[in-house]
Amino acid sequence: MNEKTATGVESGTGMSYRDAGVDIDAKMSAIEHIKSRAAQTLGDTAGPIGHFGGTYRLPGAPGQILVASSDGIGTKLRLAFTMGGDAHARMGQDIVNHCANDILALGAQPHFFLDYFAAGQLDPEVVTGVVDGIADACAANGIALLGGETAEMPDMYAVGEYDLAGFIVGSVRDSDIVDGSLIQPDDIVIGLPSTGLHTNGYSLARKIIGMTGDASHDRDVLAKPLPGAENGETIGDALLEPHRSYLNDIRPLLDDGLVRGMAHITGGGLADNLPRTLPDDCIARLDPMAWETPAIFTYLVNAGRMTVSERYRVFNMGVGFVLVVAPECVDDVMSRLADASLIGSIIPRVTSDESAVQGLSC
Amino acid sequence: MNEKTATGVESGTGMSYRDAGVDIDAKMSAIEHIKSRAAQTLGDTAGPIGHFGGTYRLPGAPGQILVASSDGIGTKLRLAFTMGGDAHARMGQDIVNHCANDILALGAQPHFFLDYFAAGQLDPEVVTGVVDGIADACAANGIALLGGETAEMPDMYAVGEYDLAGFIVGSVRDSDIVDGSLIQPDDIVIGLPSTGLHTNGYSLARKIIGMTGDASHDRDVLAKPLPGAENGETIGDALLEPHRSYLNDIRPLLDDGLVRGMAHITGGGLADNLPRTLPDDCIARLDPMAWETPAIFTYLVNAGRMTVSERYRVFNMGVGFVLVVAPECVDDVMSRLADASLIGSIIPRVTSDESAVQGLSC
Repeated sequence: MNEKTATGVESGTGMSYRDAGVDIDAKMSAIEHIKSRAAQTLGDTAGPIGHFGGTYRLPGAPGQILVASSDGIGTKLRLAFTMGGDAHARMGQDIVNHCANDILALGAQPHFFLDYFAAGQLDPEVVTGVVDGIADACAANGIALLGGETAEMPDMYAVGEYDLAGFIVGSVRDSDIVDGSLIQPDDIVIGLPSTGLHTNGYSLARKIIGMTGDASHDRDVLAKPLPGAENGETIGDALLEPHRSYLNDIRPLLDDGLVRGMAHITGGGLADNLPRTLPDDCIARLDPMAWETPAIFTYLVNAGRMTVSERYRVFNMGVGFVLVVAPECVDDVMSRLADASLIGSIIPRVTSDESAVQGLSC
Repeated sequence: MNEKTATGVESGTGMSYRDAGVDIDAKMSAIEHIKSRAAQTLGDTAGPIGHFGGTYRLPGAPGQILVASSDGIGTKLRLAFTMGGDAHARMGQDIVNHCANDILALGAQPHFFLDYFAAGQLDPEVVTGVVDGIADACAANGIALLGGETAEMPDMYAVGEYDLAGFIVGSVRDSDIVDGSLIQPDDIVIGLPSTGLHTNGYSLARKIIGMTGDASHDRDVLAKPLPGAENGETIGDALLEPHRSYLNDIRPLLDDGLVRGMAHITGGGLADNLPRTLPDDCIARLDPMAWETPAIFTYLVNAGRMTVSERYRVFNMGVGFVLVVAPECVDDVMSRLADASLIGSIIPRVTSDESAVQGLSC
């Protein structure tokens, strides 16, 4: 059973998720209710709770575990509404890659995807763009686009707006599931770069850059050059960059049994997602200087005067996917990844109240 | 591959789906694009296109076919926004039962469900209500609630509003799939009653009854007694009745191999959904006098001055699920269903341009 949510924390002086209208307490109480009600329906076919995908043992397929996840794009969609053009296709890529990464974090190979697209009125150009992005990303990941629901709901969505969700199902052999249980002290934490915010933190990012919902004003904001960026990248370019799929990078490592734990860094950042793969007796000590922080994060963190702990909860801060590997496998793994960084190591937990991820606050 | 959509047709003098803001031409052109792009991703693992669920042969599970479907509630949600209270739980039941019926139409036993819930701000009372409805319906159908996405998206949804989608996966043995291919002339068409509109036709229904979006006015409209209804049922009661699940009625008949074809009557009504299970050389001739039309449909059809062909495309008109069975099985099947009606029979197609469902227009 997995119930995912964009999370954040209350901040001190700077801008926080709460300021941007996201109430974490209300959300967490809702999530707890969902988990408890869901647990009553699971029987003995479903797997552990709290991972990146829900797991299910299919009767009649011994040794196979189905892994499923559902996701949305969140308010990154508002950038697509403002920018138009190929931004819609990027939303399609975003949702497929997000879903594929979620079940990859358990070692699952994706099989098929279905979408849910809802708008007040269907604009064929927009639907076509979104679907092209979905189909391209499915093809790149070897996923069958099995169907979906395209809903036209007058009075539910404003003109030019839509919502988009995705559902993915994959599978992993019983013996190959990667759930972090083999992680031990001295293991190494490897980070793979994100392409940007992926699909998390946009409610706050939009507030920080000053988007108001007025299309003309917002287009001007997004067209501004991104401070610190090379080759004239705009703020809009950086924020619209699609979610990267890590499947083709990670698959060969999984086939060779080189990975002990994985985390897809989504809502909640490194601080909340890495613990989902850590055993209770292990802590990850990270070194934020060990990877390059993309210019978009530096800009947002400074402009929003975000506290250190807030920034690592709202944003991925440049790390989109994390591997935990045994020390003796590190050289092999690093030689097979084009752009990974050694970002930390696993240490034993001493007291039960220690934070499971250390090194991210001053 | 299945891509579903609420459909309707242009009407003559009365109210039509187009009047209610649903543009079928735009939608159909979008759907065609989706189908063509999806077909490119399918490879040899996916099954026939156009059925009620997408089908997928899982590697490593010989003889098993996974069947998946995604769905939304549509603008029936607006009634829940207006009525509040236990209406939210009904939305949860609606989406689970809708999904379960879709894959049941191929003979699949449902395994697990995931939801997508999106709101501008999470109201714990609303989320709890929706989740309770989902969990109750999952339990009643023996479905594991495996997870979901609960998205808080400021600036995307109005206060008090939300969208809700569902995703279901089930399976059927290769040899047990019910795809209508065995249907032949003289077979009998059996209808099971709907509990009301289920989740289709609400954009038009809201327009017909005069809902404006003003909560106080709309509550008055919904509190009016339903003309022709017994026991003081209001229009709101009738319109909020949750989608019925047919799983527990139909499962024993499938186990005994008594069913040749099934159709879940959703968007597009009997006219568009029954043909999805009919072979090319067969036509269903229906007799609309053979089943009782619930008062809510009589009221909407009269108040909206809907043409005969429009009403059978927008609404289920009292038939929520259809079985096609061999003549020699009819007595057995009917004796095991508490409230079914014989609603028609299968006849040979003579010319290629004949309508696949006859008897629904004057």
